Amino acid sequence: MADKIALTPKTHTAPPAKFSHGVRKGNFLQVAGQVGFLPAVEGEPPTLAGPSLREQTLQTLANVQAILEEGGATWDDVMMIRVYLTDVDHFAEMNALYNEYLEQHLTTAPAARTTVYVGLPVGLLIEIDALAVLDN
Amino acid sequence: MADKIALTPKTHTAPPAKFSHGVRKGNFLQVAGQVGFLPAVEGEPPTLAGPSLREQTLQTLANVQAILEEGGATWDDVMMIRVYLTDVDHFAEMNALYNEYLEQHLTTAPAARTTVYVGLPVGLLIEIDALAVLDN
Amino acid sequence: MADKIALTPKTHTAPPAKFSHGVRKGNFLQVAGQVGFLPAVEGEPPTLAGPSLREQTLQTLANVQAILEEGGATWDDVMMIRVYLTDVDHFAEMNALYNEYLEQHLTTAPAARTTVYVGLPVGLLIEIDALAVLDN
Repeated sequence: MADKIALTPKTHTAPPAKFSHGVRKGNFLQVAGQVGFLPAVEGEPPTLAGPSLREQTLQTLANVQAILEEGGATWDDVMMIRVYLTDVDHFAEMNALYNEYLEQHLTTAPAARTTVYVGLPVGLLIEIDALAVLDN
Repeated sequence: MADKIALTPKTHTAPPAKFSHGVRKGNFLQVAGQVGFLPAVEGEPPTLAGPSLREQTLQTLANVQAILEEGGATWDDVMMIRVYLTDVDHFAEMNALYNEYLEQHLTTAPAARTTVYVGLPVGLLIEIDALAVLDN
Repeated sequence: MADKIALTPKTHTAPPAKFSHGVRKGNFLQVAGQVGFLPAVEGEPPTLAGPSLREQTLQTLANVQAILEEGGATWDDVMMIRVYLTDVDHFAEMNALYNEYLEQHLTTAPAARTTVYVGLPVGLLIEIDALAVLDN
């Protein structure tokens, strides 16, 4: 099988620890937990797209997409999406944004999904990771 | 590789958002997070099997199974099960029910499992998702 | 595809429920959620490596590794690591330990990773699971 390749899109900094933003090996692509950070600026600390769920959800989805694309995948290849929210009351709005975003980016059956409510570092309202299986 | 196929058993409503209850692509089958809803009734809102951990755990496992079967899989194909509970004190009872259920449905080595304690929408005590790798 | 095989390293007890500490099927290896228990002693209950995050993190990583090795894998094969902590304030220390450990055990691109903050049984500060895709 092909080597495991770290995926580091231009929008992302070099990972701050021994993890990759995404990895691809053969047909498999795993996207690490993404949050709502704006595209990285050299020498600057990470900056959230904004305090709102809307800003963070859309940026988080864009960050997942950047990693998929870096690995040669699209949303169509995604099998599973894990959504971590901090507040049950955010579900309906997240869902509306998620639908709106994926309607523009998806041509196949949608991925499976699990949404649970956890703690996240202060200021973060959403985190998303994804597993994709590519055609080849 | 084969196309990605959405799995929507007769027991489930059409998904309320851009996700699938399960997806299969090639040998891989991912079951989305299932909860203790009774089989769907056309035009009715989802109804929990009951307020108790027992009712919800057994129904949740049945819902996972419905999706596995819709994709041509059984519990024997499952590699990983993620159990989300809301209360550490529910672990022992969930485990007993889980064992009882799987003893009746499993002929191979059991899947790996991770259980963590999270927030869920009000009234829900358990959520389960699963990853299966089929023989062919 | 090859049969699904339960992975039970000598450091681990027989699983207390219908789950496996790890399973391998074909090229896929899933490690169940590991915590900081010391190598099992026949007839004794599980014992934590200690109350500190440092003790538990290093033991948890060793436990993941024991299962990888039992299945013929190494950290190099790992695609995704899920880290569950109970306290956001533990992130920096966990990260430092994680880096230190993996620097000694990893020759390829690091795995993707998601870290979230959940509840765990009393006394446990960290839980980790992992998905590996082997070369053959």
